[in-house]
Order: sequence, then C-alpha cells, then structure tokens
Amino acid sequence: MEVQIAVAKVSKYAISESGDTLEVVERPNGGLSVVLADGQTSGRGAKAVSQLVVRRVIGLLAEGVRDGAAARAASDALFTEKHGKVISTLNIASVDLSSGTIVLTRNNPAPMFICRGETIDVIDEDSTPLGISRNVRPIITEIAIEAGLIIIIYTDGLSHAGKRRGLPMDVGAVIRSLLEDQDPTPQSLADSLLAQAVGLDEDRPADDISVVVLKVIPRVGDNVRRMSVRLPIEGVARLS
Amino acid sequence: MEVQIAVAKVSKYAISESGDTLEVVERPNGGLSVVLADGQTSGRGAKAVSQLVVRRVIGLLAEGVRDGAAARAASDALFTEKHGKVISTLNIASVDLSSGTIVLTRNNPAPMFICRGETIDVIDEDSTPLGISRNVRPIITEIAIEAGLIIIIYTDGLSHAGKRRGLPMDVGAVIRSLLEDQDPTPQSLADSLLAQAVGLDEDRPADDISVVVLKVIPRVGDNVRRMSVRLPIEGVARLS
Repeated sequence: MEVQIAVAKVSKYAISESGDTLEVVERPNGGLSVVLADGQTSGRGAKAVSQLVVRRVIGLLAEGVRDGAAARAASDALFTEKHGKVISTLNIASVDLSSGTIVLTRNNPAPMFICRGETIDVIDEDSTPLGISRNVRPIITEIAIEAGLIIIIYTDGLSHAGKRRGLPMDVGAVIRSLLEDQDPTPQSLADSLLAQAVGLDEDRPADDISVVVLKVIPRVGDNVRRMSVRLPIEGVARLS
Repeated sequence: MEVQIAVAKVSKYAISESGDTLEVVERPNGGLSVVLADGQTSGRGAKAVSQLVVRRVIGLLAEGVRDGAAARAASDALFTEKHGKVISTLNIASVDLSSGTIVLTRNNPAPMFICRGETIDVIDEDSTPLGISRNVRPIITEIAIEAGLIIIIYTDGLSHAGKRRGLPMDVGAVIRSLLEDQDPTPQSLADSLLAQAVGLDEDRPADDISVVVLKVIPRVGDNVRRMSVRLPIEGVARLS
C-alpha cells in the first residue's frame, strides 16, 4: 500500500500570512505525522500562536510522546502562557507504522470525514480547542491502514466559507460529489474543496483555509518516498 | 513566481529505514527551509544521528536563528555528544521571503548544482560534515530568487551509485541530459536522478539516497500553497 497526503492552504484575503500552521514530520518509530493548528484571529498574532502549538507538538512527537499526550501538553502550555485568553485548534493525523494504524487527534470544533467506498462518516463529536481551560481532552480516532481509506481534515475557514453571503458551504455534500469521480487523487480532492470555498467567498477568502486529504492506495510502483511543495511567492496577490 | 520543491528518497537495499532524514519547515519570517542530514553508517544508528541533527536545526530555525549559525550549533552539539566519533552531513536550502533569496548551507563533501538556462554550476568547494571537530564551518551560498533557477542537492548515495560495479554515476552529465528535456518538473528531475542511481546499483541501492530539487517558475495560477507526500508502507520491498 501507499499513503498519499495532500495539502492545499490559502490565507485570508489581503493578509499575506496564513494564521494556520501545518507541518509534516517523521515519527521516530516509523511513519509520519501531519500537524495542523489554527490560531485565534488572523494575521501575525494567530500565526505566532499556531506556530507555538505546532512547534511544541512536533517536538514532543519527535521524542516519542504519544499524540494525545502531545496535544494535552500543548494545551496546558498555551493555557499557562495566555491564561485562557488565546486558543488554537489542533488536528494531528499520524501514519503510525509501528501499530499499522492511522491515529487522528482532534481539538477542533470543525468535523473531519472518514470515507471508505460509498460510506462517508463524519466525525463531529464535540471537541474543544487547545488553551481554553485546564484538562482539555483530545478526541482520538484510531483506524487500521487499509486501501481505499480517505480522510479529510480542515480548518474552520472551509466550513465558514460563503457565510458572509448567507450561502454556507455544505462540506459533506461537496465531498460526496467529489468522490463520485473516478478515483480522485488526494491533491485534486484538497484543491477542489479549497476552490469551492474560495468561490463561495467570491475569491476573497474570509478566513485562512487549510485542507488536508490522506488517502491509502493499493501499492503500485516503487519503494521511493516522495514529497513536493509549491510555494507561490507574490504575497497578497488576488486568488484567481 | 512560484518555488517548487521535490524530494525523492530511498533507503539502502534490505534496510527498511533510511539513515537520511529530511524535513521541510516554515521559517518564522516567511518562506520555508528544507533540511537534509545523512548520518554516518546506515540503519537505525544513522537514523538516530540524522534525526538528532535535523531536529536541532529545525528547532533553531523556528526560533529565527540564521541557517549558518544553526548548522554550527548542530555540529557543536554532535561533537560534544559523540566526541568526534560520529559525523553527519547537512544541507539546508532556505527560501527566505524576507530577503528574497535562496540560502544554501552545505556541510557535505557531495557537491550541489545550480542551474540557470544553459549554465550549470557545480558547487564543490571543500566542505566537512558536522561533528568531525570543533568549529566546523558551513559553506553558505546565497542567490536571488529568479524564474528559471534550478538547484539540485543530494546525499552521497547518489554519487556513490554504481561504484560497486566500477560504473560510478556522473551526476553532472545526467543533470545536463535531463535539463535538455522541455522544462522538466522538479519531481521528474528528482525521480530521474534517483532512478538512474538505483539502476546503476542493479535495483539494490548500496546506500540511502535522497535527492532534493528546487525550481523557481514564473507565476502561473493561484495563491494556494500545496504539499503532497507519498509514503510506501511495505517496508523492505524490492525496488522496481
């Protein structure tokens, strides 16, 4: 099998820096983790918060700390530093090769989707962001790595898209229609979800938006790990 | 413009874990850094060393430490811990949006290539790995971000490929021939270089090999940051 992960990420209109931070890091016992945080508000303040959270989480994961414990530690640190006045969402998606599972850690009111064939499950159990109080509990979902699995995670900019105009995005319905296509790649799923949201905001995103899609495919090809990154560098250019 | 980065990475034949570690991280003042380390020997020992080096470097970069200073600090830490008995190469390629430059930091006897149009420059000034002595000096090369620029960085597994059979790879010649194609993508360049090396090793790589290709293209398209990762998960399956 092969795990494929795709990310598409855009910042709020006219703000050069996204308040969302996303990093992908190797796990010390094999596999990798995607860590995504969305700091409260937008711009530099939000960026500082989400960077703080992600940096702390990846530091702990690198030491072999379990995902849930890393989320709790990051929450306690944020609460201690900001006294509950600044919060951040957190999602961790870990491909854990030592257990053969995908471990999903969620401290984010925004739901996530787990799709297998025709079945689309929405994981929307109540979940609180980090830093809001002591003893914040992450929601942990652990599932076996199996071909055909698709997991979709996003920050709330996606579900808030279009609200300004009273046309909020029905993320589940969009996912269902995208999955009707013939075997979409994770990058095309992430790009299409993001494009739909940006379109609802009339090409001026009302918030930072990050979309992560993880897909497990039956193995085809070689044993090479690959990564690619695309970084537009004109700052606040208008989205087309 | 858009900066595109591609990575292709394979482990030594019959060793499930590559001793090379590569991470891509955001820079606190805008842009991102690719950090690649190759620890001495192979397998778990090498992995532990390269992870130590990369983790320390990305921690310092995240705090705003300059690339050269981060390399020196990682070297001193490795020398202090291992008394000069364990060494690691290090390459950092940073897209620094605050200066509008690409900063290349090199502590690696393996050269790197900088290509602009027909011109292919090889950067092969003597360079020592981290941890070999006190006061290890990185070689720093800083160049303006401009469309058409291609930078190729790799670990020594690439240049050592084929040596076992007396048919060492001429990396420069392979790059020249690949660049004759019509505007190759960074992923196709990285994949082709890796495939050539693995072929010379008769599909059984004699060492871990990592190839990083960075390309600056004139801007086409939207303002979306994208990342994709492909992780084969069958362990030591034979390369095809």
